[in-house]
Amino acid sequence: MKRPTVDYANDPYTWDNISGWKQYRSLRPFRGMYHDVRRRLPWYWTDITDGMTYRTFAGCIRIFFVNLLPAIAFILDMQRRTNGFFGINEALFSSALAALVFSLFSCQPLTVVGITGLISLFNYTIYDIAKSYGREDIYPQFLCWCAIWAAITHWVAAVLNWCDYMRYITDFSSNAFGMYVGIIYMIKGVEELVAGFQEPGSSWAAGYLGIVIALCYWASVYFLEAMGGTTYLTPVTRKLLADFAYPIATIWWTGFSHIPGRIKSTGLLRLEHTPAFYPTTDRSWLIDFWNCPVDWIFVALPIGILITLLFYYDHNVSSLTAQAKQFPLTKPAGFHWDFFLLGITCFIGGIIGIPLPNGLVPQAPVHTDSLTEYVDNLARSREQDYEPSEGEWLQHNKKVVRATKVHEQRLSHFIMALGFVGLMTGPLLIVLHTIPRALFGGVFFVVGWGSIEGMNITSNVLYILRESRYIDPQDPRTTLKKSRIAYYVFWQSIGVAASVAISQTIGAIGFPVIIVSLIPLRWCILPRIFSEHELLVLDSPTADATVVLASMGGQPTLPEVKLAEQKRSERGEEDVDGAGGVSSGTSSQGTEGIRSREKFKDDEEKEVGRLRRERETEGGVQATLRTGHA
Amino acid sequence: MKRPTVDYANDPYTWDNISGWKQYRSLRPFRGMYHDVRRRLPWYWTDITDGMTYRTFAGCIRIFFVNLLPAIAFILDMQRRTNGFFGINEALFSSALAALVFSLFSCQPLTVVGITGLISLFNYTIYDIAKSYGREDIYPQFLCWCAIWAAITHWVAAVLNWCDYMRYITDFSSNAFGMYVGIIYMIKGVEELVAGFQEPGSSWAAGYLGIVIALCYWASVYFLEAMGGTTYLTPVTRKLLADFAYPIATIWWTGFSHIPGRIKSTGLLRLEHTPAFYPTTDRSWLIDFWNCPVDWIFVALPIGILITLLFYYDHNVSSLTAQAKQFPLTKPAGFHWDFFLLGITCFIGGIIGIPLPNGLVPQAPVHTDSLTEYVDNLARSREQDYEPSEGEWLQHNKKVVRATKVHEQRLSHFIMALGFVGLMTGPLLIVLHTIPRALFGGVFFVVGWGSIEGMNITSNVLYILRESRYIDPQDPRTTLKKSRIAYYVFWQSIGVAASVAISQTIGAIGFPVIIVSLIPLRWCILPRIFSEHELLVLDSPTADATVVLASMGGQPTLPEVKLAEQKRSERGEEDVDGAGGVSSGTSSQGTEGIRSREKFKDDEEKEVGRLRRERETEGGVQATLRTGHA
Repeated sequence: MKRPTVDYANDPYTWDNISGWKQYRSLRPFRGMYHDVRRRLPWYWTDITDGMTYRTFAGCIRIFFVNLLPAIAFILDMQRRTNGFFGINEALFSSALAALVFSLFSCQPLTVVGITGLISLFNYTIYDIAKSYGREDIYPQFLCWCAIWAAITHWVAAVLNWCDYMRYITDFSSNAFGMYVGIIYMIKGVEELVAGFQEPGSSWAAGYLGIVIALCYWASVYFLEAMGGTTYLTPVTRKLLADFAYPIATIWWTGFSHIPGRIKSTGLLRLEHTPAFYPTTDRSWLIDFWNCPVDWIFVALPIGILITLLFYYDHNVSSLTAQAKQFPLTKPAGFHWDFFLLGITCFIGGIIGIPLPNGLVPQAPVHTDSLTEYVDNLARSREQDYEPSEGEWLQHNKKVVRATKVHEQRLSHFIMALGFVGLMTGPLLIVLHTIPRALFGGVFFVVGWGSIEGMNITSNVLYILRESRYIDPQDPRTTLKKSRIAYYVFWQSIGVAASVAISQTIGAIGFPVIIVSLIPLRWCILPRIFSEHELLVLDSPTADATVVLASMGGQPTLPEVKLAEQKRSERGEEDVDGAGGVSSGTSSQGTEGIRSREKFKDDEEKEVGRLRRERETEGGVQATLRTGHA
Repeated sequence: MKRPTVDYANDPYTWDNISGWKQYRSLRPFRGMYHDVRRRLPWYWTDITDGMTYRTFAGCIRIFFVNLLPAIAFILDMQRRTNGFFGINEALFSSALAALVFSLFSCQPLTVVGITGLISLFNYTIYDIAKSYGREDIYPQFLCWCAIWAAITHWVAAVLNWCDYMRYITDFSSNAFGMYVGIIYMIKGVEELVAGFQEPGSSWAAGYLGIVIALCYWASVYFLEAMGGTTYLTPVTRKLLADFAYPIATIWWTGFSHIPGRIKSTGLLRLEHTPAFYPTTDRSWLIDFWNCPVDWIFVALPIGILITLLFYYDHNVSSLTAQAKQFPLTKPAGFHWDFFLLGITCFIGGIIGIPLPNGLVPQAPVHTDSLTEYVDNLARSREQDYEPSEGEWLQHNKKVVRATKVHEQRLSHFIMALGFVGLMTGPLLIVLHTIPRALFGGVFFVVGWGSIEGMNITSNVLYILRESRYIDPQDPRTTLKKSRIAYYVFWQSIGVAASVAISQTIGAIGFPVIIVSLIPLRWCILPRIFSEHELLVLDSPTADATVVLASMGGQPTLPEVKLAEQKRSERGEEDVDGAGGVSSGTSSQGTEGIRSREKFKDDEEKEVGRLRRERETEGGVQATLRTGHA
């Protein structure tokens, strides 16, 4: 079968070089959605044929567990805090619905959609709001209207091409968001373990045993996943261990919790037994949203907009990370179309009273990752100490992992959907009920810690803590003062701290405003505080892959580049700034700036190392000249 | 003050080139002890003056905790299994006695002496033996006689210069022993946590909370000690964290266990309150050993000999590791004298009914280590991939730790002794009683795991598991087949497995026989199974420092070297064996073999790398020649 050939760099969907009313995105509805579908549809058949591989199976198992376990964990959280309105069946229904819709109809089948911690936060905060007015009786209807407004605003945003603005998101805000999510997950994990003491039927012994299980589960998954990165065993074995870390640990520790005697008799809390296919509370699936008081319908509007704001950021960032540049993707993205679809799941989810699904933020790249063929290659290097004195040559055999191909397909996503549907049946529900609830605390720790570890805030803090003399000269951050890096981290941390703080209050639903406000902060204020060079080293656009940018009308010019450009042209200079070697090197080439910036990102370490060495050499030459003159 | 200058390589204490009856060690009593004292006495005053440094203080705190916490943990174990004959006061008394005697009178004040897990094993197995004959009533007297016989055999061994035979111990047996001790410690840790469920007054909740505390304590100490090896913070800060890892974690988790509410109310087991200075059971300190039935006195003889066998191995190996070559020591060792001293503490310990102290095996090098001045230096290196293709040069700034000096002194040991005496008083005993018992489970895990991690069995197993292509060519083991390394590990593992297995039975007191029998196995059988080259790579003498060997009459020639030597001279060849490049390279030089072997050990990696490269080059030249001829 012939595969479409496309030149994403020259996609017809662009807003550059257009004048008149046509340049305004909102005036040309459906343009983005149309182009999304037009770009993606030719690939549809390959999405099925490309799925016939082992990796599809491995990816399917892995993402199934990574999606299922936190979803159940979050539903437990919601159940506790909404007086039992939500339960396992709602979680499974929501996950199955999202997986079916997005595996069949989305432009980006790699982006896995499901229940996140943030919708949990929304759902119980909305409950708290209703309760604070003494109207928890209309919670289902109220929640439904929030979802309906959210659906409507989703559609508006998708139709008016607003997803284009995702291209302005940089790691500054998306990493702050990832950090925030990671912290929330860790908090949820602790809350889950605390619940093991407080829930009816629990005992202190069960609570403490739960902590033991959660910690051991965390350690097990962490160890198994880390095995994949080592050079032990064979490439196949260690890949298998990493692929199936969640199922292995889940089965192991569930089994452990059933060891007869002191462990089983402790009476660990387990998932509650519920009849298959029915809502948890005594209601029909369809919410009687027409019975909602009119004033509450309008109170629901701002909340619906906040949900849209959250999903706009959350869902699209998960699509971005699932299609990041490190994955060698060939099939195009489609942000507008998918956001419209998300509006549909919001609407359906709303009227049947299930948690609204959206893109899974820390888990999204896991799916793509598990579908990627990695080859462990051997690289040999020689190393020699040259200071304090010339040492001997040492030879190293190193593992170099290369991503050769991503199995971009819909099958793993679709099979996962079938898995959720299967779980909703009686027999498999019983299997679920054997899992101790404390294990979900461990799931939170794994996922949350994974997110915290991977963010630039963490790596920058570790960089600052490291003794300067042991930092490799290749690190581009060596061109900056540590105080400046700390200052940058400070700005990010404000966003994270404010979000975490507000999440603990009834104002929790306002946190998307804080996260989203980091974008204008980065775009308008940061370029005035930090130099072009500093931002070049510390930040980069989150939308960095060509396949992704086509759906957003191409990459924008960064404000700091514009600013530096402008300053230079004002001074009528070409390249003078001595300190900004790298920045001037890139930005003086005008529109080329972006391209060399991309190159810079592409292989950051090496590139900056080269640039810096060049600069050092130049400096050396200049110093020699100066000495010569003196 | 003038410091003695000594040439340890030409120490008058030697048995080489002596003929007639004088060559027999046992016929010249006190010779070793005399030379030990003669060699060490001139340094005595410097042992005090050299102690006036911060490192003495740091070393003192660190070894105090590393000595105290396991000692208490072991006494809990003994208390549980000897029907309460032993208690905290006995542990403190024993530790204080040992520390006073050895800090003041020993030749090797770096070797810290105290209560180990193995004497615990002995004490309760002796109890089991008495009990199996229905005579637990005479347990104190019986135990006392075991100690008296042990003391007598200690003195015999010391007087007849038998400690010389320690020089025949290689890593083959000493690492098997370390592994065995590590495993026993881990088992004891689990037993301590299980006791948290079974002891009177305990609850399941307390038991599980205990597990949480033990695991967290383990993680904390491990993390803090690991900090010392990183490049984070400043050299001083990270060194401080590593130095005080035990006190920090102990204070933290003890405090944690007292948090009011769900934690404190759980009723964690804590150390029992006992009156100061009195024995735990209602008895006077002096055991009425004259009331022991005569037949039991003679039953005690073989047990006493087994204790001596254990201490002979255990105490001397701890002295060896505390004075290993990696520490730049200048003051001489004295094995004979110290073993005589150990006989004295055995005698005193026996007649007052306290656990017999001896050299602490996994902890012994900790004392020397904490007295060593390490300087973190910077080394710069350049690295380049040369396969698959010539990559760019990368520069690395590496931390290189250099041991510049060991503060060899008696003060830290003596202050530790005072600390134990202090702890025996009422007020400090009360402080001890605030520690939750489960924390000692964590102590076992830290110490036991540290021992397991550091043994050659572990590193060889990891080597075998590693994918071959990623092993650095410098590793001397690359010259061997993996199956041969596995075969070597197999022999060691037999010793470990047999010792661990027997330790779980009433035959536990027989385990020193197994450990000690590994020495003749290594000396007589292994050289016939493994080639000289294999043993050169896989094994090395445990007594490797010059300061140490002087006290043992110098280094012996290894049997595999002799054997290879003999074979070659039989064949009238000089150096033909193509495969044994390294071995033939060293052994063909006859008596030089040892010296080049030492050099080889000294900087194993580099040296073997060099030798191998040389061989490879030669091989290359020969291949070229051959091709030329063909």
